[in-house]
Amino acid sequence: MEKIRIGFIGLGCRGCGLLKDVVLKQNEQVAAVCDVYEDRAQKGADLVEEAGQKRPAVSTDYRDVIRNGAVNTIIIATAWESHVEIALEAMRAGKAVAMEVGGAYGLKDCWDLVEVWEKTRTPFLFLENCCFGRREMMALNMVRKGLFGDVVHCAGGYQHDLREEIAFGRENRHYRLRNYLNRNCENYPTHDLGPIARVLNINRGNRMLTLSSTASRAAGLRDYIRENKSDDAFLKEQTFAQGDVVTTVIKCAHGETIVLTLDTTLPRYYSRNFTVRGTKGMYEEATDSVFLDRPEDRAHDFDWRKTCAGNAEQYQEEYDHPVWKRYLKEGVQGGHDGMDWLEFQTFFDCLRKDAPMPVDVYDAASWMAVTALSEMSIARGGAVVDVPDFTGGRWHERKEEDMR
Amino acid sequence: MEKIRIGFIGLGCRGCGLLKDVVLKQNEQVAAVCDVYEDRAQKGADLVEEAGQKRPAVSTDYRDVIRNGAVNTIIIATAWESHVEIALEAMRAGKAVAMEVGGAYGLKDCWDLVEVWEKTRTPFLFLENCCFGRREMMALNMVRKGLFGDVVHCAGGYQHDLREEIAFGRENRHYRLRNYLNRNCENYPTHDLGPIARVLNINRGNRMLTLSSTASRAAGLRDYIRENKSDDAFLKEQTFAQGDVVTTVIKCAHGETIVLTLDTTLPRYYSRNFTVRGTKGMYEEATDSVFLDRPEDRAHDFDWRKTCAGNAEQYQEEYDHPVWKRYLKEGVQGGHDGMDWLEFQTFFDCLRKDAPMPVDVYDAASWMAVTALSEMSIARGGAVVDVPDFTGGRWHERKEEDMR
Repeated sequence: MEKIRIGFIGLGCRGCGLLKDVVLKQNEQVAAVCDVYEDRAQKGADLVEEAGQKRPAVSTDYRDVIRNGAVNTIIIATAWESHVEIALEAMRAGKAVAMEVGGAYGLKDCWDLVEVWEKTRTPFLFLENCCFGRREMMALNMVRKGLFGDVVHCAGGYQHDLREEIAFGRENRHYRLRNYLNRNCENYPTHDLGPIARVLNINRGNRMLTLSSTASRAAGLRDYIRENKSDDAFLKEQTFAQGDVVTTVIKCAHGETIVLTLDTTLPRYYSRNFTVRGTKGMYEEATDSVFLDRPEDRAHDFDWRKTCAGNAEQYQEEYDHPVWKRYLKEGVQGGHDGMDWLEFQTFFDCLRKDAPMPVDVYDAASWMAVTALSEMSIARGGAVVDVPDFTGGRWHERKEEDMR
Repeated sequence: MEKIRIGFIGLGCRGCGLLKDVVLKQNEQVAAVCDVYEDRAQKGADLVEEAGQKRPAVSTDYRDVIRNGAVNTIIIATAWESHVEIALEAMRAGKAVAMEVGGAYGLKDCWDLVEVWEKTRTPFLFLENCCFGRREMMALNMVRKGLFGDVVHCAGGYQHDLREEIAFGRENRHYRLRNYLNRNCENYPTHDLGPIARVLNINRGNRMLTLSSTASRAAGLRDYIRENKSDDAFLKEQTFAQGDVVTTVIKCAHGETIVLTLDTTLPRYYSRNFTVRGTKGMYEEATDSVFLDRPEDRAHDFDWRKTCAGNAEQYQEEYDHPVWKRYLKEGVQGGHDGMDWLEFQTFFDCLRKDAPMPVDVYDAASWMAVTALSEMSIARGGAVVDVPDFTGGRWHERKEEDMR
């Protein structure tokens, strides 16, 4: 692609942040903006103008953006429910797609993504920014260098107190409220699963076979609303379907286990709890530490937390991922500790060089499927359900693509 | 019971430690000692003599100890496989029993414990020392005072690198080796489950309903033996049945979830990862911190680890459990940070006062059952299995008994 001309769809909090702090700062041309809310769409256009570009076309219907002949690249940062629909239409129109993360509402969404991509072969990146996290990439680099030995178990979580965002969802026009009212599932698996999937070569020599999910009851939002929104006549009458803590256990083709925790409606500090466990060592975010199978580490068996917590910093110089080493030299920019910057740098770089995207439609389909599968499993009391192979057997041969 | 006269059965590492550092230091009379290995039994007898008591009867057959008319109280610290058999015979003989922890080999073991106890009503304490851990008891105290609000989720683990103990199991005559060779299950659930069961009122107004377990493949011991015991012709030929990491998810009658992790054959530091999550706050061992739903805590959402890790210490003065407050005043004694001391103090105190034991046969049966149930679930690919109600419906009414 010689000249990237972006149509940016979805300009809520996340969309505006990406547009202003990443896309426009990377000097990409934005030809059209869109949001179902007119005020948001106009604000997006203002941001483009403020960055010194011509005012883009503005619409409240994403179809206008996809039809727009001046647009060859679609960025999707809408509410979860519309990601797939927009991506499918964009691909069918032959436009490149970067799609924000979320979970699938049914397995058909995932199959449709794969089918349409296989027909159109349009460039497609799934915007899982945590795949570009510094610690996640350092751990991946250490795994590839063999420091952790044979990796047999990984864990992670989306552990983020979102009670305020959800409870004020009508005021903020936030899609999470309706999702938490109606669904009980691992509704946001990819921030934790994405980096783990890379470590375990999912869809590239390995795959997820089965999944079991269990949800606790829902009490966090109820108590939060009692304390903080007791005058909200609508919310006071609601019962939330979404359990407070959802635990999902996945078994992989080579016998590895993955444990994911969705934990968004109880008081806590933010954590993705990224954990990689091998026969020769581990990284864990809980203590931000690297434990290697050496006498000096084993000597701290019982006082690790007090003595060695936070030691991951000491491994940065040697083991930061090459992408991060370069990035630190250039100067970290953009939100979320630079992860957003790197994912879009990768997207635009792959577009220009016509290179394969490192997080592709098969990753999107299999990671998003976890949401739909977890909903089934929870509804059946934790029953084991099968994870489809969206690659049609090609996972045996597929290779990892470079991050940029 | 006026005069406690102990028969101590099982004098491996754990038994000797308890005998020397706890039972004899609490000045209890030991009338008989026993181990299947004669040298260990004699060593036990030496310990009793060194403490200034008469040399006890020595045997390699536990039946001798139970038959011994001078013995009215049996302490069982043998290999896992014989706990239940010895406890049953002791109860049938009308002797009081303190039984070390381990998992059940089948559900019948658990039902037998309950049935024989209900017939004999002999005093029975399940020696889950972690129920007496300082942090575990502080968190329990905070839960009872309502600081964490409505508790909906708990987690814990037995996360202890035991590769050396297991790989040298033939040299050390350690039962773990044969267990790891032959079984794949949550083989040691009670250190984490016990304190969680107290928090969630299991068998006292609540119960465990269903369970699902998933095991990773077994690679840790294989790699350890390659590196450290490559000259061991026997071990080199073995394939371990026990997966490295076993994740068990339990659902309770009131909708709470419990996640247990068995993690004993990969390099790591020791942790029980005790975690209690409520609608108003949490305690977690990973950062040894208390997070309450207050503006000052919420302000540290994203820098909690760096800013607030270890803050649990600040809550001790106000919230240490009354048992621990008294104990600290008297001076902490015994192994495992005092937990062993407190559990035996409770045992002997309840015996003398003819008071009900705080960790009883229903707790033993339901906690130990997790091992047998996890084995079934893993064998069936993580299928959900039912946790029996060993109280026969009496959990609706049963009340918590004091720890002493």
